[in-house]
Amino acid sequence: MQKLYFGSDYQQAAHPDVMARLMRECTSPYPGYGTDEVCEAARAKIRAACGRSGDLPIHFLVGGTQTNATVIDAVLCSYQGVLAAETGHIATHEAGAIEFGGHKVLPLPQKWGKISAADVRRACEAYHGDDNRDHMVMPGMVYISQPTEYGTIYSRAELTALHNVCAEYHLPLYVDGARLAYALACGENDVTLRDLCDLVDVFYIGGTKCGALFGEAVVFPNASLEKHFFTITKQHGALLAKGFLLGMQFDELFSNDLYARIGRIGVEAADALREGLRALGIDEVIPSPTNQIFIRLKSEVYRKLSDRAVMGFWEQDGDSTVVRLATCALTAKEDVDRLMELLKEEAAHAAR
Amino acid sequence: MQKLYFGSDYQQAAHPDVMARLMRECTSPYPGYGTDEVCEAARAKIRAACGRSGDLPIHFLVGGTQTNATVIDAVLCSYQGVLAAETGHIATHEAGAIEFGGHKVLPLPQKWGKISAADVRRACEAYHGDDNRDHMVMPGMVYISQPTEYGTIYSRAELTALHNVCAEYHLPLYVDGARLAYALACGENDVTLRDLCDLVDVFYIGGTKCGALFGEAVVFPNASLEKHFFTITKQHGALLAKGFLLGMQFDELFSNDLYARIGRIGVEAADALREGLRALGIDEVIPSPTNQIFIRLKSEVYRKLSDRAVMGFWEQDGDSTVVRLATCALTAKEDVDRLMELLKEEAAHAAR
Amino acid sequence: MQKLYFGSDYQQAAHPDVMARLMRECTSPYPGYGTDEVCEAARAKIRAACGRSGDLPIHFLVGGTQTNATVIDAVLCSYQGVLAAETGHIATHEAGAIEFGGHKVLPLPQKWGKISAADVRRACEAYHGDDNRDHMVMPGMVYISQPTEYGTIYSRAELTALHNVCAEYHLPLYVDGARLAYALACGENDVTLRDLCDLVDVFYIGGTKCGALFGEAVVFPNASLEKHFFTITKQHGALLAKGFLLGMQFDELFSNDLYARIGRIGVEAADALREGLRALGIDEVIPSPTNQIFIRLKSEVYRKLSDRAVMGFWEQDGDSTVVRLATCALTAKEDVDRLMELLKEEAAHAAR
Amino acid sequence: MQKLYFGSDYQQAAHPDVMARLMRECTSPYPGYGTDEVCEAARAKIRAACGRSGDLPIHFLVGGTQTNATVIDAVLCSYQGVLAAETGHIATHEAGAIEFGGHKVLPLPQKWGKISAADVRRACEAYHGDDNRDHMVMPGMVYISQPTEYGTIYSRAELTALHNVCAEYHLPLYVDGARLAYALACGENDVTLRDLCDLVDVFYIGGTKCGALFGEAVVFPNASLEKHFFTITKQHGALLAKGFLLGMQFDELFSNDLYARIGRIGVEAADALREGLRALGIDEVIPSPTNQIFIRLKSEVYRKLSDRAVMGFWEQDGDSTVVRLATCALTAKEDVDRLMELLKEEAAHAAR
Repeated sequence: MQKLYFGSDYQQAAHPDVMARLMRECTSPYPGYGTDEVCEAARAKIRAACGRSGDLPIHFLVGGTQTNATVIDAVLCSYQGVLAAETGHIATHEAGAIEFGGHKVLPLPQKWGKISAADVRRACEAYHGDDNRDHMVMPGMVYISQPTEYGTIYSRAELTALHNVCAEYHLPLYVDGARLAYALACGENDVTLRDLCDLVDVFYIGGTKCGALFGEAVVFPNASLEKHFFTITKQHGALLAKGFLLGMQFDELFSNDLYARIGRIGVEAADALREGLRALGIDEVIPSPTNQIFIRLKSEVYRKLSDRAVMGFWEQDGDSTVVRLATCALTAKEDVDRLMELLKEEAAHAAR
Repeated sequence: MQKLYFGSDYQQAAHPDVMARLMRECTSPYPGYGTDEVCEAARAKIRAACGRSGDLPIHFLVGGTQTNATVIDAVLCSYQGVLAAETGHIATHEAGAIEFGGHKVLPLPQKWGKISAADVRRACEAYHGDDNRDHMVMPGMVYISQPTEYGTIYSRAELTALHNVCAEYHLPLYVDGARLAYALACGENDVTLRDLCDLVDVFYIGGTKCGALFGEAVVFPNASLEKHFFTITKQHGALLAKGFLLGMQFDELFSNDLYARIGRIGVEAADALREGLRALGIDEVIPSPTNQIFIRLKSEVYRKLSDRAVMGFWEQDGDSTVVRLATCALTAKEDVDRLMELLKEEAAHAAR
Repeated sequence: MQKLYFGSDYQQAAHPDVMARLMRECTSPYPGYGTDEVCEAARAKIRAACGRSGDLPIHFLVGGTQTNATVIDAVLCSYQGVLAAETGHIATHEAGAIEFGGHKVLPLPQKWGKISAADVRRACEAYHGDDNRDHMVMPGMVYISQPTEYGTIYSRAELTALHNVCAEYHLPLYVDGARLAYALACGENDVTLRDLCDLVDVFYIGGTKCGALFGEAVVFPNASLEKHFFTITKQHGALLAKGFLLGMQFDELFSNDLYARIGRIGVEAADALREGLRALGIDEVIPSPTNQIFIRLKSEVYRKLSDRAVMGFWEQDGDSTVVRLATCALTAKEDVDRLMELLKEEAAHAAR
Repeated sequence: MQKLYFGSDYQQAAHPDVMARLMRECTSPYPGYGTDEVCEAARAKIRAACGRSGDLPIHFLVGGTQTNATVIDAVLCSYQGVLAAETGHIATHEAGAIEFGGHKVLPLPQKWGKISAADVRRACEAYHGDDNRDHMVMPGMVYISQPTEYGTIYSRAELTALHNVCAEYHLPLYVDGARLAYALACGENDVTLRDLCDLVDVFYIGGTKCGALFGEAVVFPNASLEKHFFTITKQHGALLAKGFLLGMQFDELFSNDLYARIGRIGVEAADALREGLRALGIDEVIPSPTNQIFIRLKSEVYRKLSDRAVMGFWEQDGDSTVVRLATCALTAKEDVDRLMELLKEEAAHAAR
């Protein structure tokens, strides 16, 4: 029996519709670097989904860390740093890509991966109230992820509060949407693409983890931040020669409601998992409503299961292990069922 | 009639075999970041093609500028720069990606894009003989491209001479092989992959311009230079989450002699073009034996042709225009024939 | 009556002996960039004070932030960061100079500015035990300050423990000795210059805050870290053209026991202040044995005093204010007495 | 007999007036980091010398390379480079300090160290006319030195031409005035400090090579470029804690016409040398009117002289050697006479 994969949301290629589209247009020629008509069409569809017309600059990049590093470097002045949750991807798992660009990540306290407007305000007040502020790194923007690295999401009220404090301190607000489809699709969510356009300065719509083969669409509701972004992308080695590949994928993702459907596939699979886990008495350790589920297993159970199901190791905690289960655009119902059976079986063993 | 594309070698997706392979394995799950078995299989095949066994580290990255910036940053110490032809891609068309990493590109004179061992020696002697060398950027490696940005190639003798001077001055020699397939395939070439492994410290086998959808395989004959390359790749935002996509493509490219065949497709199409151009009395302005052809057209002819054929504008020179024609893995014989007809037609008009 | 200055230890020029030396040798010519004989003589004297002979590389730089940024950049590989107390100077008050060089400051918990060997071990174990460590910034060295930013000092036992854990994880240990004279001179101290040479890889002997006009002497007990430090210094804009000015000052500081005497001047003045403060019932809020004293004053008292005495504002805490008093090589006994009188006077007012 | 020093203009400490001033104010306390009243007074005097009132921001830094790196980093956006003569100090002898900050030095052709407005225009037209400009480093400012590294100077007409082309392309024009005193003082010069304020965006008045112990005064006629320069200076490790030392020196240099007198001392000594050299039939190889003289000596003569006079080796040219003689604020008449005697003596020997 083939191993089950719930280790992450980038372990399979792409949604079949995306693959079919790429196949179909595989041999046609296009201009390079995203200057082609397919990219333009994709941009138009994203703008429509955002409720905007032609004044919304959009660029396509390849991956998440790359996008974060490029956007943050484009937005910040050389003497500024980026405020982020101490657990934010840029603060922990990007191998220092932000510092490579010369900028400090200014860590903020977090709860389940989320920062609060109050903490942003506190950091700004601390900076601006400090007599030594000219010797310190100036906060130059705020980074959040939606959903967060823990699968949690910001409500529209929370995002509005962040927007307000950012506006007050002239800090661009940037949203890392690597898994945005799953935030948009989950029941608890009340933040639409239109809201993002109204409330943040720049965000990206994640493709890699949301049904694309690869690719992220960077959207600039604050168009003034987009100045020379093409060249900055090139300078970061982040400009894909065959940019039309990104255009094709995002054009497909924003046709026939595909991006929304992909979000639902991931969230529904996760919800099915949650229901099964609850039935087994396995609690989630983080209240995530999206495609990531964090649970605690007896380490013995975890070890045995690992041979048959890939799960994300999170941490050892005494004789139990916290693991992450992730679903995605390609998670099949039968895989969810099989994982539940394996868990049931092991739970029964473990209980004996 | 559809427009003809001879503007560059990255205007179409991928060789059909590569696309078919991606389609076939599209829904299977894999571990992330190139740690999967397909990548391992691809590495084994590349090693075999290089006549080496398991001691040859290989990493897969996405694009050329990205690869250059990451490799150069990995090889150099902070106080060193990279010697390169003043026309080298890193010196001209990478938007300062090398400087973004903190390193100076030290320009060398060139002929048709090639540098000589004598000029490398001259630069090293000038540096080491200068009383002020401790105030200067130390040459820390040599960058060349094979073929060059002008389509020319280094012979084994020339490469050996570069190898020798580099060894003498302890300078790693790095080869940008963005279009390597076309160098390997052209009649004039006497440098094999095995020779590259013997003569250079690190090189990359270009995929993006040679039949892959995207991707470059970085090969480290000098394994000591590979230390922490994975993390450095991540730090540069150059680590593809779905690394298996790169593995699949290179596994395919190095199966059934595909990479060699792709090289031949491109070179044969270029040679057919050359023959036609000669018949029309249109001279090549650069003696390139690979997939790039540089010709001078009457600007009037160029303008008219442009509506029906995409060509690469190189420079205006009085009332004539230098253009680049590029073929690739997907150039069809009939497209070459059609371009010749168009040229004939325009040449006839222009002659009248 | 002239205002009293206890605001910091860099508010006056230099110890008279240092000034006299500079005056005396003012018009003699010297080679540039620290290649002169006076610098060599100063190095020899520092080596003697360290109990070492000629195998101890020493470089002279101008200021503290500059020295930290240059040394850390010289020691770290591009993918590494520096472990430091979250209150360390490099983490807070250097305007992102370390990040400007491309490196992350990895914050550690601290007590009165000091980190523990246990916390360094914990950070190393966390990194090396993390499956995702290749996506993270690798700890590449440890930074401490002696005395710390809070005036506290590491004992020989504590430093030995840090040395051991650093050795175990192959982390160079670096000591920022901006105020080293005051650590060496204080009663509680048991760490000599010889101990520093035995226990750390690189440290600097602070001049700017310890009686010099300016200047810091970087000492490399681990000589392998000094490779190309001259060029790296130039690259950082940190190479003083008239390096002999630094040599003269350090030659003077290490003649006739001057550096030790300066340390004692500062510490004795601080101890006199401490005694007076205790008599007034004003407690130190940080147990510092060196030239910095942190006390809590009624904000009303602080405000009134500020007109006549410069003190370092630290923080507002309800209706009291924490201030720093700093002594230095030039603090006069009568100034200490006058400050005590002012405090007595205000305390009497405030008590009424 | 003591060796003569004509090797460079930073081989002696400071003009006696500057030293005396430092001595006099040595023990008075001041606030740190250039926020003191002496710095303010110095700024006012420099403003007066520039014919400006309070709207002219001025910062004091320590050395030339440091100043260039900090100013250029402050002025450029991350994706921009700096146009400079290929012989400019930033292009050759700053160990890659500009690239360390992430920026490319875009080299221009030069004559005796000077670039022309025509060449700046050509570079700008080439960039803006290039279809691939978005893949290239954008020219973001122009760097020149006055006098140049070869001692030559720009006339007001030449500077005006540069100003005009820079204005046309929105390029800030920056003047490295490391040796500005000698340009201002030489007979050929028609560019005053007022002219600099009218024609350039930022420049620095060199202290280190012009009679100060150390220090450079950065002047921003284009005040908008000065935004956050204090913090950028700190980030570059270029902020002197005892900034008042810089203030005292520049206050002295701009009192009693001292800076102008220093310039004259250097130029008059150089002119006396020139006269003597001409009498000996030794030609200058570069038409420099300032404090640097470039001559060709028989290598045999050079070698013999070297034991008794420090000269700057420039290059070997067959059996002759090009050397640089530099005078400065402290060059004594008798030293000039003695050097002439030595040359006469050797010339006589060599002629025999």
